[in-house]
Amino acid sequence: MKFIRFQYNNEAKYGFIGDNGIIEVSAEDYLTNNHKGLKKYPVNVKILLPVNPSKIICVGLNYRDHADELGMEIPDEPIIFLKPPSSIIGDRDPIIYPMMSSEVDYEVELAVVISKEAKNVDRENAKDFIAGYTILNDVTARDLQRKDVQWTRSKSFDTFCPIGPWIETDINPHGLEISLHLNGELRQHSNTRNMIFDVYELVEFISNIMTLKKGDIIATGTPPGVGSMKPGDEIQASIEGIGTLKNRVIYSK
Amino acid sequence: MKFIRFQYNNEAKYGFIGDNGIIEVSAEDYLTNNHKGLKKYPVNVKILLPVNPSKIICVGLNYRDHADELGMEIPDEPIIFLKPPSSIIGDRDPIIYPMMSSEVDYEVELAVVISKEAKNVDRENAKDFIAGYTILNDVTARDLQRKDVQWTRSKSFDTFCPIGPWIETDINPHGLEISLHLNGELRQHSNTRNMIFDVYELVEFISNIMTLKKGDIIATGTPPGVGSMKPGDEIQASIEGIGTLKNRVIYSK
Repeated sequence: MKFIRFQYNNEAKYGFIGDNGIIEVSAEDYLTNNHKGLKKYPVNVKILLPVNPSKIICVGLNYRDHADELGMEIPDEPIIFLKPPSSIIGDRDPIIYPMMSSEVDYEVELAVVISKEAKNVDRENAKDFIAGYTILNDVTARDLQRKDVQWTRSKSFDTFCPIGPWIETDINPHGLEISLHLNGELRQHSNTRNMIFDVYELVEFISNIMTLKKGDIIATGTPPGVGSMKPGDEIQASIEGIGTLKNRVIYSK
Repeated sequence: MKFIRFQYNNEAKYGFIGDNGIIEVSAEDYLTNNHKGLKKYPVNVKILLPVNPSKIICVGLNYRDHADELGMEIPDEPIIFLKPPSSIIGDRDPIIYPMMSSEVDYEVELAVVISKEAKNVDRENAKDFIAGYTILNDVTARDLQRKDVQWTRSKSFDTFCPIGPWIETDINPHGLEISLHLNGELRQHSNTRNMIFDVYELVEFISNIMTLKKGDIIATGTPPGVGSMKPGDEIQASIEGIGTLKNRVIYSK
């Protein structure tokens, strides 16, 4: 089931994608199995951000083939960092190229959406705390990442966290093709089976550090092929069974 | 003016500290100059967290005397990192010593509370975006900080961000004595005039990266003398003109 938030007549609505359109559901039924359809809408509505996380926890260097590409050792524990809520944008929203950087990279990632408060969860039970999956582009100012050593500044600019377009609730997260196209050209490509720490291990590790809240997002790392974007570029981040997240890069005003 | 949130008869209330007690104000008047007193309460109420930030931005290595102590160069730009909202606790709440670490340190810091949305603010105008100041203890699992290189895990455990006890709106942030006592013994001591980047420069730098929201917090770095705590220890973090933030360390259950 693909759950979506959308705008119709200037109102924000909840729904899921049906056979011939979008079926509205109540806010309470959103992301649950109990989704009573209220009303049908055309598919060409404006798509809104599918979720409002209180925090976004990202994992660095979590694909074997990406670690190989960089000639780096496989880490024995996940390396985590945070992106601020102020960096989030939705599908089709512009990525603003900041004045402070001259090297801004894309990074397609599978994003886990948390369904309810999670603390000290074992990997065996992790599934019970996951509402579904979406796509995240962990936009990174590579020059500032190198300069600062700490990754926060380089990953925290406004618009540096596109998320969407919707949340898929019924897929196995391990074994999905994941790719990114820059102006129609394939740049990143792998499969989520190449993750070093799988989704359930990440929920265990992170929930043993911090309490996860409903709607929080875990970004699970990026595959090989990261590279730079410039204003005017169009980025399509795709994951099998979910869909495609599209954003264009624009100049800072 | 010291603005405070407190609990009375299981209700959360807003107020300020008056001559002989706490004077309640409406939620709208909280942190504003326009504070009509509603009702008087005794001073021995339970103090609540004075603010609920959407993000906490911290600055590493921002005291000249602390950089000297570590033998480190003065950075040419602030190094920032984030602590998640789930790490926040209030005055007198316990700091829980996590199972994952065996070296947990205190770090007293002056915390800036943002008054309204701030984006690309110049240092000359920064004051207009500051509601006031409070105290923050940037609790850090030093062993994990060394291991990960990235600072996020070590600073993100639940209860690792005590903030409070209240917000002082009428002080000059530059020239305040700042100190920390462990079980009554002085461990950290400096003056906020020793900051490398002052409060207004930090608001400029950070708001040029990310949009600051009302209630967001900037932690301005810690002075010399950081060291370890163990379960049972009592920490008193004090800043001249603000007050003292007290927390005790307890074992993880």
